[in-house]
Amino acid sequence: MLNPTYNDLETYSVTELKNDTFLRALLRQPVTYTPVWMMRQAGRYLPEYRETRAKAGSFMDLCRCPELACEVTIQPLERFPLDAAILFSDILTIPDAMGLGLYFSEGEGPRFERPVRSTQDVRSIGMPDMQTDLGYVMDAVSTIRQELDGRVPLIGFSGSPWTLATYMIEGSSTKNFAQSKAMMFDRPDLMHELLGKVANSVTQYLNAQIESGAQAAMVFDTWGGVLTPGDYREFSLRYMERIVDGLIREADGRRVPVVLFTKGGGQWLDRMAETGCDALGVDWTTDLADARRLVGGQVALQGNLDPCTLYASPERIRREVGRVLASYGAGSGHVFNLGHGIHPDVNPEHAAAMVEAVHEQSRPYHASD
Amino acid sequence: MLNPTYNDLETYSVTELKNDTFLRALLRQPVTYTPVWMMRQAGRYLPEYRETRAKAGSFMDLCRCPELACEVTIQPLERFPLDAAILFSDILTIPDAMGLGLYFSEGEGPRFERPVRSTQDVRSIGMPDMQTDLGYVMDAVSTIRQELDGRVPLIGFSGSPWTLATYMIEGSSTKNFAQSKAMMFDRPDLMHELLGKVANSVTQYLNAQIESGAQAAMVFDTWGGVLTPGDYREFSLRYMERIVDGLIREADGRRVPVVLFTKGGGQWLDRMAETGCDALGVDWTTDLADARRLVGGQVALQGNLDPCTLYASPERIRREVGRVLASYGAGSGHVFNLGHGIHPDVNPEHAAAMVEAVHEQSRPYHASD
Repeated sequence: MLNPTYNDLETYSVTELKNDTFLRALLRQPVTYTPVWMMRQAGRYLPEYRETRAKAGSFMDLCRCPELACEVTIQPLERFPLDAAILFSDILTIPDAMGLGLYFSEGEGPRFERPVRSTQDVRSIGMPDMQTDLGYVMDAVSTIRQELDGRVPLIGFSGSPWTLATYMIEGSSTKNFAQSKAMMFDRPDLMHELLGKVANSVTQYLNAQIESGAQAAMVFDTWGGVLTPGDYREFSLRYMERIVDGLIREADGRRVPVVLFTKGGGQWLDRMAETGCDALGVDWTTDLADARRLVGGQVALQGNLDPCTLYASPERIRREVGRVLASYGAGSGHVFNLGHGIHPDVNPEHAAAMVEAVHEQSRPYHASD
Repeated sequence: MLNPTYNDLETYSVTELKNDTFLRALLRQPVTYTPVWMMRQAGRYLPEYRETRAKAGSFMDLCRCPELACEVTIQPLERFPLDAAILFSDILTIPDAMGLGLYFSEGEGPRFERPVRSTQDVRSIGMPDMQTDLGYVMDAVSTIRQELDGRVPLIGFSGSPWTLATYMIEGSSTKNFAQSKAMMFDRPDLMHELLGKVANSVTQYLNAQIESGAQAAMVFDTWGGVLTPGDYREFSLRYMERIVDGLIREADGRRVPVVLFTKGGGQWLDRMAETGCDALGVDWTTDLADARRLVGGQVALQGNLDPCTLYASPERIRREVGRVLASYGAGSGHVFNLGHGIHPDVNPEHAAAMVEAVHEQSRPYHASD
């Protein structure tokens, strides 16, 4: 079944991008100020989000309805002069489309009815079709892209293969990663087979998002940081590199930048920079000056204000924004962001203070760009 | 009220230490094999622990009864040829003795009846008396020391000031550290006042443990890794340095080594090594070869097998032990440990395989010690 919106690429590609600061910074091209967006900028801290979410029914109903997903994606842009929009969706859409039966249990986060444990489980996983099984995501992308009308670029995203695999194997959120690591240690062959399948799907998924209108792609490796350095390279980084290799890197006559983000990956930024990606997300436990030295100008950096800073007063927020800008220093190649998703109990006015402070304070750093 | 056991230091100091490999390795003195112990080695993964725990009543009842605390401290040594014992206790004994009202709610971990939030709260915190308020800990230390009879050294420990402060401020376990970080950002003066008080108590607490018989001291900075590098130095490391400065460093005619451990602190090991401590705990996300380079031979290293490795087969465990030993390489200055506490659902025979593998495989690395 073809989805008309998904294939109707012409509708948006004619619209010129009015603010390309975000894309330019990711490619380390000159900019006049440091662009800013926030991970989970469309989310529970916004009363308008909570309203739409209530209207939608369940969380997955919200993800599955392109109009409502578009609505919540745009909401933070109406409040704050953000330099990028990010597709509103869940990172577990792929395992769900593989038939694992995603559901959300009250207060316990996502769960799968059929976790992947045995050889048989891994072998029988189906490869989702991007148009039929995940067409709702592509519809959301093209709907948002049209609605944005060139205002700012739209970021598409996916979870990393390792991160998705941990949820698929555990069947729920986990603290210890007991099942996933047992498979990794005792059945590395099986783990690689699973990760290979997931990496193929993620590549197709991000490419379909790019074909539907996403102007940058980000891979969220939420759980790569729970691995040893060697296991990280073998079971997480290797598959992100494979994804980077397989991605469409140009669309609408522009480069489509790829951002990799491993939470807790500050020690491995040099290795991550060698994957061929354009930029790295950095959490707040690494100083951007150190990170910049470590990657040696190979990639742009995105981050890295401690999300808890937004619990502080606007005055203090402005000072911390100044500290982060100074830690990156002069020149392009910095996209301001939080070091992780914005917390649900943050006052939206504090987010406003942060965005404003980035725009105000960053111009001197780009005087010679 | 004087506690007779606490002051009766002569009972154990005459006993000679039969196995001092652990103390020697912490001081980077020659050893014939790499010593090994496990964080939380006295714990729920052992059926005999669960039995004693059931007998004791609540978890804090177990901590407060010197005989039972001694019993569970010794249990892992009866099963495995470990090279050190660690006092069985809770990290929250100090805030409890400060009058915050520690209790454990089913499935939710530790909580405080009276969390510390305001200036008034911080000001009114009492400094616990080590003999009256925390005499049960000192009794446990001297009881264990007598029971050990010089078999292996006994480690005393405390939580770090930052880690204790987060529990005191939040009043419970937390994911976001919203209250603690809000205080840190908006009331750094108050946070420093609180941390100063806690650091004083921790120093007295560890010194009292050393006077009661502890032969090494370890500071657990479980939550230092949630800070930015700058905040870590200002709000966590500074106070651990103050503690190191204030500790008794010799007892029974031997050096008392001090170990600092910040979970997630792999990027800051060089700074930590400058505190004057003897050794650093390293979690599994840092390669010991890199860690060794970073600290430049200033301190010994303790770690760092991924605790989840113990979910794997004994064969695989032996291989991973070999990898960790090789990553540290030749020479003294390595104490083998897990990178964090042993998980409660680990098979004790897997722990046995680890301990045995460390002893068997480490001798070649000490041929020229």
